[in-house]
Amino acid sequence: MFGGVSLDNRVQNIFINTKEQIGCILIKNSDEPFIDNNFFYVTGLNKGLFEGSVAILYPDGHIKLIVSELEFEIAKKAKAEIKFYKNKKEYKEILNSSISSFKTVGLNFKGISHKDFYKLKDEFQKINFLDVSESFQKSRLIKDELEIKLIKEACRISDKVMKKIPEILKIGMKEYELAAEIDYLMQKNGADRTAFETISSFGKNSSEPHYSHGNNKLKKGDFVLCDFGACFKKYNSDITRTFVFGKASSKQKEMHKIVLEAQKIGFETIKPGLKACDVHKKVGSFIDNTNYKGRFIHSTGHPLGLSVHDGEARLGTDCEFELKENMVFTIEPGIYLPGYGGIRIEDDILIKKEGIEVLTESPRGLLEI
Amino acid sequence: MFGGVSLDNRVQNIFINTKEQIGCILIKNSDEPFIDNNFFYVTGLNKGLFEGSVAILYPDGHIKLIVSELEFEIAKKAKAEIKFYKNKKEYKEILNSSISSFKTVGLNFKGISHKDFYKLKDEFQKINFLDVSESFQKSRLIKDELEIKLIKEACRISDKVMKKIPEILKIGMKEYELAAEIDYLMQKNGADRTAFETISSFGKNSSEPHYSHGNNKLKKGDFVLCDFGACFKKYNSDITRTFVFGKASSKQKEMHKIVLEAQKIGFETIKPGLKACDVHKKVGSFIDNTNYKGRFIHSTGHPLGLSVHDGEARLGTDCEFELKENMVFTIEPGIYLPGYGGIRIEDDILIKKEGIEVLTESPRGLLEI
Repeated sequence: MFGGVSLDNRVQNIFINTKEQIGCILIKNSDEPFIDNNFFYVTGLNKGLFEGSVAILYPDGHIKLIVSELEFEIAKKAKAEIKFYKNKKEYKEILNSSISSFKTVGLNFKGISHKDFYKLKDEFQKINFLDVSESFQKSRLIKDELEIKLIKEACRISDKVMKKIPEILKIGMKEYELAAEIDYLMQKNGADRTAFETISSFGKNSSEPHYSHGNNKLKKGDFVLCDFGACFKKYNSDITRTFVFGKASSKQKEMHKIVLEAQKIGFETIKPGLKACDVHKKVGSFIDNTNYKGRFIHSTGHPLGLSVHDGEARLGTDCEFELKENMVFTIEPGIYLPGYGGIRIEDDILIKKEGIEVLTESPRGLLEI
Repeated sequence: MFGGVSLDNRVQNIFINTKEQIGCILIKNSDEPFIDNNFFYVTGLNKGLFEGSVAILYPDGHIKLIVSELEFEIAKKAKAEIKFYKNKKEYKEILNSSISSFKTVGLNFKGISHKDFYKLKDEFQKINFLDVSESFQKSRLIKDELEIKLIKEACRISDKVMKKIPEILKIGMKEYELAAEIDYLMQKNGADRTAFETISSFGKNSSEPHYSHGNNKLKKGDFVLCDFGACFKKYNSDITRTFVFGKASSKQKEMHKIVLEAQKIGFETIKPGLKACDVHKKVGSFIDNTNYKGRFIHSTGHPLGLSVHDGEARLGTDCEFELKENMVFTIEPGIYLPGYGGIRIEDDILIKKEGIEVLTESPRGLLEI
């Protein structure tokens, strides 16, 4: 046991974190991409798509799944009562018999489309549907033992691949070719898939934080920004390194040094009890006191887990929430100069009782390749 | 021009397909994965994540984007007016000045979370928000010239990879290793990423339609079910072939022959004017008249485009909508025997004025490898 949490009592924790009195909680997936990851959180299932599926959670930890015949075989692997339907009529009957007796039902307002909410409200006019999104978020921000194990494995895979990149880079190589190599290596090393579309940007393209990759060819003096992650049994890692292909200019060196120092400040600042925005303030004001004022244009980090951006919480300007033990975040300061290039250094960290454990370990110093 | 549709008038088409009188339409992205693909549909942007971003559409085709500074550089590539914000306060001010004068605003109820809807409703109490999800769906089901071009390119990539699979298969190979090779080849051939988590299932795992891949080793006599797609500039393909590794048993041969014949019936049935459920009825009843009654456990196909399941429409039991020229669907009958194995054959088709064009062309006959 680890902080008293195991897969068995994830459901119970969600109820504990809910202020309202509710009879049950309903998770309703729509069509891809509107799938609520909480479906996988509560069941522990690490395969399947489960479009249109429903999970009903009861205060005693019991779970009932309503799934189409298509995913019955996969659903059976969950510790849950499974009901399967062949058509809309059967689906409605099962849902009706499962929730119609409750006066209040919790819903993740952030994970259900307005259309699906509207339909539920229309069909079950007597039920009072209450928002339990904060409870899901609160529960999921604190990772349990199994989650940390899976995130660490995802981190191990992306670390291994990051370390190989210097050997892969060749003059004239295209950005998409590097992305293909990165993704291949991750899968060969055990990733189920990439955590997100791999970013491998050369030269000035590195100044666009969410650029992925294109036909641009690698040339001497280019920044090489690699931002990718492995997805292992639905859990993600997220790592970034920025190399220079060839000899770095003094400006490139200066930028890299500042970002690295900013990340170190992040590492040293974070501890349980601190407000998230205070971390960002410290990292951001460090960069703003250099020649690159205003060129760090995103938050310092985001929670990481079943989703790459694991909830709305950010280590950012408007985020007042308190950091706690067993939260996992990315720490990723950057400097972006449109038309010139950008640098980002990103690692994944676990908040411990005192300070942090850095989960990714690829060398952070400036590599001139 | 192609049926009178180009990127320029996608927005106008959405208004034309809307029954209600509305001043503007608002697309609101939440956090990943709750990103409304219509954001990319109307802007034509093929990079970026755009979490929290907003697109406002006006009846004359004009688009206003509200994006964070983080994605300003990418957003600039769209033919749109761009406003960027640095924090929540600025975001609220821009949104307020953009929509508060309208009495009615259209929203895609299927693409917005209930939480975001609730916030909008709370902030703009005088605005009547109307559901335009049907209009988005109706517009997107009919592909325009550019969309068809991109889907065809995605199909070309997955076809090329599917043809290479027989050379890749080796005894003892693990499912995840095959998936890694497939994904690598797709990216090397121009895919930006895989359309979805590649399914490469051996033996009895092939009986789970949404199984992806695991550590299972390939052995003689196994079914090898490969279901994957390429994502090219945000547009997807989706293809499945089922091979037999070694000599096929008479049962495997029989299953394959029936599925192939079922698909042929699908191809021959589809034409503009038909109801979607009628295609499924014909394909399904063919399989139900064999020894494998009840073992075709999903719909005959789904629309394909910016999303892999491009809207709720299915070639399935409850789907009454009418098939029209320039719709793109998968045709994917299957037979699944839990504990034994499954066969699925899937191709992507474009509905033409008379009949269809099959967009994927890898050999469909039973390959014993």
